Amino acid sequence: MAPTFADVLAAAARIAPFVHRTPVLTSTSVDEWAGARLFLKGEHLQRTGAFKYRGATNAVQMLSGDAAARGVATHSSGNHGAALALAARTRGVDAYVVMPAGASPVKRAAVERYGASVIECENTPTSRERALRAVVARTGAAAVHPYDDDRVIAGAGTAALELMQDVPDLDVVIAPVGGGGLCSGTALAAHGCNGAVRVLGGEPALADDAARSLTTGELQPPRPPATIADGLLTGLSERTFGVVREHVEQIVTVTEDEIVEAMHVVWERTKQVIEPSAAVSVAAARAARLDGARVGVILSGGNTGVVDR
Amino acid sequence: MAPTFADVLAAAARIAPFVHRTPVLTSTSVDEWAGARLFLKGEHLQRTGAFKYRGATNAVQMLSGDAAARGVATHSSGNHGAALALAARTRGVDAYVVMPAGASPVKRAAVERYGASVIECENTPTSRERALRAVVARTGAAAVHPYDDDRVIAGAGTAALELMQDVPDLDVVIAPVGGGGLCSGTALAAHGCNGAVRVLGGEPALADDAARSLTTGELQPPRPPATIADGLLTGLSERTFGVVREHVEQIVTVTEDEIVEAMHVVWERTKQVIEPSAAVSVAAARAARLDGARVGVILSGGNTGVVDR
Repeated sequence: MAPTFADVLAAAARIAPFVHRTPVLTSTSVDEWAGARLFLKGEHLQRTGAFKYRGATNAVQMLSGDAAARGVATHSSGNHGAALALAARTRGVDAYVVMPAGASPVKRAAVERYGASVIECENTPTSRERALRAVVARTGAAAVHPYDDDRVIAGAGTAALELMQDVPDLDVVIAPVGGGGLCSGTALAAHGCNGAVRVLGGEPALADDAARSLTTGELQPPRPPATIADGLLTGLSERTFGVVREHVEQIVTVTEDEIVEAMHVVWERTKQVIEPSAAVSVAAARAARLDGARVGVILSGGNTGVVDR
Repeated sequence: MAPTFADVLAAAARIAPFVHRTPVLTSTSVDEWAGARLFLKGEHLQRTGAFKYRGATNAVQMLSGDAAARGVATHSSGNHGAALALAARTRGVDAYVVMPAGASPVKRAAVERYGASVIECENTPTSRERALRAVVARTGAAAVHPYDDDRVIAGAGTAALELMQDVPDLDVVIAPVGGGGLCSGTALAAHGCNGAVRVLGGEPALADDAARSLTTGELQPPRPPATIADGLLTGLSERTFGVVREHVEQIVTVTEDEIVEAMHVVWERTKQVIEPSAAVSVAAARAARLDGARVGVILSGGNTGVVDR
C-alpha cells in the first residue's frame, strides 16, 4: 500500500498545531543566476532545522494512546533523530535513537537536548538494525523509519502542500532525493494540487541511485558515500521508488561544484544558512535549464544546528 | 542642528515605497543563550543586505529634482556605497562612489552591479576626501556621507521605528556603534516611541571609541583597526556623539570571542547569515546581563553579499 494525497492532507491537518508554516523566500538575484523564478520553501526554518520534523510529528501523533505511552524509536545519524526526539517530547512520550558511535557530536547533542535516549551502535546496517530491534523488544516502543514509512512520507509532503497553496501557479516543483521520503511526499502533494505541475528530483551525481533507478526502471543500490550532500547518501526503498516512478518526471543530477555554488549563492543572496543537501535542489533548478519557469524548490534543511522558535 | 524623531517619522513615510519592511526574528534557543528575550530586527534582509539602504534612500529622495539630476557621491569601502548606488538607480540618477584601491572586490562588484561609477583612491582619509571633492566639483553631485548626515541618521532610525511598532513593549533596544549613524537613529526612534525604553550601544572592545567618549564626555578618536567587526571601525562624529550622549545609557563593549560566538549562535539557531558587525549587538545583548528583559536588537547587516528581493 502506497501513501496517497489524502494521507498528505490528513497529515497537514494533524501536524498543523505543532509545526511551523515556513516562509517562501524569493530573490531576483538568485532568479538571474538560476535562469528561472525560484520560490524557496524554507524548511531550514522548520523546528529542529529540517523538514524531518513534519514526518516525525505525523508518525508520533498517529500512534494510539497505548502505543505512544511505550515511546518511539528509530535509527538516525542525523536530523530524523532530533526530529523524532522533539516530536516525542511534544507528545510527552519517550524516544530512543540508535546512533553510530562515530556520529557527529553536534547531532547527538541535538537529539539529547530534546530529551531522547541515545543508544550507540557500530556504524554498519546490521549493527544498527540489531540495536533498534533490541530497544523495541525491551521497551515496546514503536519504530519510525526515517523515510520508508507512509506516515513519514505523508508528513514530508506537507511542506510542498503549503508551497502549492502559497504559490498556486507553479510550473515545476523540485525536491532533493536521498531515501526518497521528501521527494515522494512532495510529488504526492504537488500532483494532488495540480496534475499538470512537473515534479523533478535533485540528486548529487556522486549519489545518483535514484537517477539510475528511474532510468533503468529497476531499484538500484546506493553507491559508497562520496558527496558533500551527506543527507542524501541513502538509497530509495521499494516504497519510495514506487511513488517516484509514478510521479517524478526526471532526477536531475548535479556535480559537487554545482552544489557548493548553489549553497554559496543562497547564503550570499538570501542570507539563509542551508546545508549542501538542501542546496542540491537549488543546483538542480539551475541545471535543469527551466527557462523562466516558476519553480518551487524545497529547501530541505539547515545544517547541524537547531531551529526551535 | 541635530536630527529629531520627527525626521525619523518623515523618513519612514518617504522611504516606505522603496525599502523592505524587514521581519523581526525570535528564537527560544537564542533567548536561553542570551538570558533575555531577543527580538532581532532583520536588516540583513534589507535591500543591498544592510540597514544602510534606508539612510541612502532617504538622502537621495530628499534631493530636489535639479540636485538629484546631477547625481550623488560618497566615499565608502563597504555597504554604504552599494546602498547609495541602488538608491540612486531607483531614482534614475547617477552615483559616484570613491573606494580605496584595496577595497574588497566583492563590495566593489556590488557597487558596480547597481550601476554606480567607482573612483579609486589611496586608502587614506586625505586621498579619500580629495577624490570625493574632485568628483563633486566635476559633476555637481550631492555628497552623502555614510553617517555624518542628518538624512542618513533619520533613515537609519526607521529600522528601530518599525521594530518599536511591531514589538511595542520592549524594555531595551540595542544597536551596534561604528560611526554612530545607526545608533543615533535607533535612539531617536526608540525614545520617540517610548521615553522609558533603555537604549544601549554595542561596540567591539577593540574599537571602543564610543564607549570611551561616553564615559569621558569628550569625543575620543578611534583606535587603529583591529576588530573582526570591520563595519564598526570608524569613530563617532560630533553630530552622532551629540545624539548618543543624550539618548544612550551605556555602550556595552564585547570581546572578539564574544562577537564570534554570537555570530555562530545566530547562524546555527536561526539559520541567518550575519556579519561580525551585526553580531556585536547580539553579543552585547548577552553581555549586558539583561535578566529576562524584552530586548530589541538591530541586526545591522549581512555579509558582503547582495540581498535584492
